[in-house]
Amino acid sequence: MYDVCIIGAGPAGISSAIYTASRGFKVLVLEQERVGGTIAGVSTVTHYAGVLPEETGYTFSKRLKNQAVYCGAEIAIEKVVKVDLLSDIKKIYTTNNVYKCKAVIIASGTTPRNLGIAGEKEFAGKGTMLNALYDGAKYTGKEMFVIGGADGAVKEALYLSQYAKKLTIVHFEDELGAIAEFKNRIKEKSNIEVLLHSRLTKIKGDDEVNELVITDEHTKEERIIKSQGCGIFVYAGSTPNSEMYPDLVKDNGYIVTDERQKTNIDGVFAVGDICKKEIRQIATAVSDGVIAGINAVSYIKSRTDRD
Amino acid sequence: MYDVCIIGAGPAGISSAIYTASRGFKVLVLEQERVGGTIAGVSTVTHYAGVLPEETGYTFSKRLKNQAVYCGAEIAIEKVVKVDLLSDIKKIYTTNNVYKCKAVIIASGTTPRNLGIAGEKEFAGKGTMLNALYDGAKYTGKEMFVIGGADGAVKEALYLSQYAKKLTIVHFEDELGAIAEFKNRIKEKSNIEVLLHSRLTKIKGDDEVNELVITDEHTKEERIIKSQGCGIFVYAGSTPNSEMYPDLVKDNGYIVTDERQKTNIDGVFAVGDICKKEIRQIATAVSDGVIAGINAVSYIKSRTDRD
Repeated sequence: MYDVCIIGAGPAGISSAIYTASRGFKVLVLEQERVGGTIAGVSTVTHYAGVLPEETGYTFSKRLKNQAVYCGAEIAIEKVVKVDLLSDIKKIYTTNNVYKCKAVIIASGTTPRNLGIAGEKEFAGKGTMLNALYDGAKYTGKEMFVIGGADGAVKEALYLSQYAKKLTIVHFEDELGAIAEFKNRIKEKSNIEVLLHSRLTKIKGDDEVNELVITDEHTKEERIIKSQGCGIFVYAGSTPNSEMYPDLVKDNGYIVTDERQKTNIDGVFAVGDICKKEIRQIATAVSDGVIAGINAVSYIKSRTDRD
Repeated sequence: MYDVCIIGAGPAGISSAIYTASRGFKVLVLEQERVGGTIAGVSTVTHYAGVLPEETGYTFSKRLKNQAVYCGAEIAIEKVVKVDLLSDIKKIYTTNNVYKCKAVIIASGTTPRNLGIAGEKEFAGKGTMLNALYDGAKYTGKEMFVIGGADGAVKEALYLSQYAKKLTIVHFEDELGAIAEFKNRIKEKSNIEVLLHSRLTKIKGDDEVNELVITDEHTKEERIIKSQGCGIFVYAGSTPNSEMYPDLVKDNGYIVTDERQKTNIDGVFAVGDICKKEIRQIATAVSDGVIAGINAVSYIKSRTDRD
C-alpha cells in the first residue's frame, strides 16, 4: 500500500515525487520507458530557469531521477495498463503488478505524432522514426531532414546540424513557428536550409531511405529529393496519453484540472503536458507537480484525520 | 524605450526575462540588490526539479543571471522608486534613470520580517540580522540560534550546524512546521536542540551579543541564555514588496492576477512571491515567469498589430 502513486516520470511526475516523498509519504513512480519522459530524448534543455548551459535531456533526466530517489520515492519501470480510480483506495494495474494507494497523480504526458505517410514505419530505425539525441551522431556526414517548424523541431535541427552534411527543415506553414533566438541561430548555420509551405508525403528506399517526396502546400506539386542513407527526424506535435482514464473529465483529450491540479475524482490529480493548459513548458510542468504534490499530501492527511 | 521592463531579478523575474528576450524583445531587468533575490541568500536550493545536488543560492543565482544575459536581456542594479503604469507607455523611475516600456512584469518578491525586539537592530552584523550563507562560517565554533520553525528556518539550521558549536532552533509553535525530510535530518544532528513554544524576546550584549531572553509561549516565563559572541539567524516570514503599486488590486498586500499572470492594469503582469497564491516555491515562481513572459509578448504583438 502506497500513499501516492504517480503515473509518469517526466519533470511533472518527478516534481510531484520530490514534494510528496520529502514530506514523509510512501511514493511510487511508475514509468513505462525512461525517467525524464519526453524531455529525456531532447538534445538540449534550454529555457528552464537555472538549467545548466548545454544541458542535454539525458543529463537533466538523470538528475531528476537521483533527486526523487534521494527524497525517498521509489521508481519502477512498468507499463500501467489499467487504473481503478473511483474507490477510496485506488488501484493501478501494470504489466507486472497491482498497486494500491490513497492518491494518484497522473503525469502520463503526450506521445509524439507520426506523420502517417507511406514508408514512415517501414524504414523505422533505417532512416525514419529517429531521435536527435540518440540517433543524430549515427548520421554524421549524411543528409538530414527535420520535419516541423515549432521550437522543438528547430532546436533539434540546430543540434543535428553539427553532424549533418546538409540539413533541411521541412515545414508546412509559410513561416517557422519558433522563437526569435532559434530563428536567428538557424540563419547562422550555413548547412541548414528551410523549405516552407512544404510537406513530407512519401518516403522510399532500399535497405535505407534514399528518396523523399515533398508536396508544396500551395501548388500541390510534388518534388522528389534523392538522398541515399539520409536521416529523417519528425517533430509533428503530440497527443495526450489519456485514453486509459475514461472516468476523468477531458477537453480534446487533455485532462481538466482546477488550480490545485485536482481532477473531477477525489484524490486524483493530473500534472504536466497531459493537462488542459495554454503553455506546455518544463517550468509549467514542474510547477504543476509541486502544486499537486502538496495538495495530494493535504488530501491524504485530511482523510486520515477523518478516519 | 524597452519592450518589457521586469522589476526584480529573482527566479520569477529571470524566468520572464528568458522567455521575453529569447523571443526577440528588448528587455530590461531592474534589481535593487542582487540577481537571485531571496534565493541568492539561501544556503541550499533543494526541491526544485533538476537542481544540482548541494547547490547553493549563490551558484544557482549566478546561473540564472548568465541564462538571462545569454538570451539577450539587460540587467541593471538600480532601485526602482516609482512607477507609472496606467498609460500605454509605462514609466519606471529608478534612483538613476527613467525607463519607458510597453509592458511591465512585477517580480518584486517579499522582504524578510524582522522580529522587532530590543537589541535586534543594535547588534546588526555583530550577532544579529545575519544570513546563513554569507555569515555562517564567520561564527564557526560559536553558539548559534535559528529563530523560526518553517522549512526555510530548518533548512538553514541544518546548513549552519556544520559550523556551530551548538545550534538551538527557537520556534513559537508546539511543533516544527517543516517537512519530514528536514525534521528527520535535524534528529540526526547531535549539536542541534529544538526549543518549542518559545519566542526570542530580547537580545543583549556588549560589542557582540552575549545574552538572549526567551519567553515561553504557554507559561510566559522568561529564561535567560548567556552566550558570548553567538550568532542569531532569523526566519520569521516575509511581507510582499507591493507598496509601490497603489493602482494594482491586492489582497493582504499580495498582487491579484488571473491565470495568465495579468493584473487589473493592461500590460502589467505580476509573478512570483509578490502574487496572491497558495504555494510559494521556486518552481511556482519560475512557472509564473514563463506564463507572464509569453503573455507579455502576445500583449505587445496585439498592440503593434492594432497600431
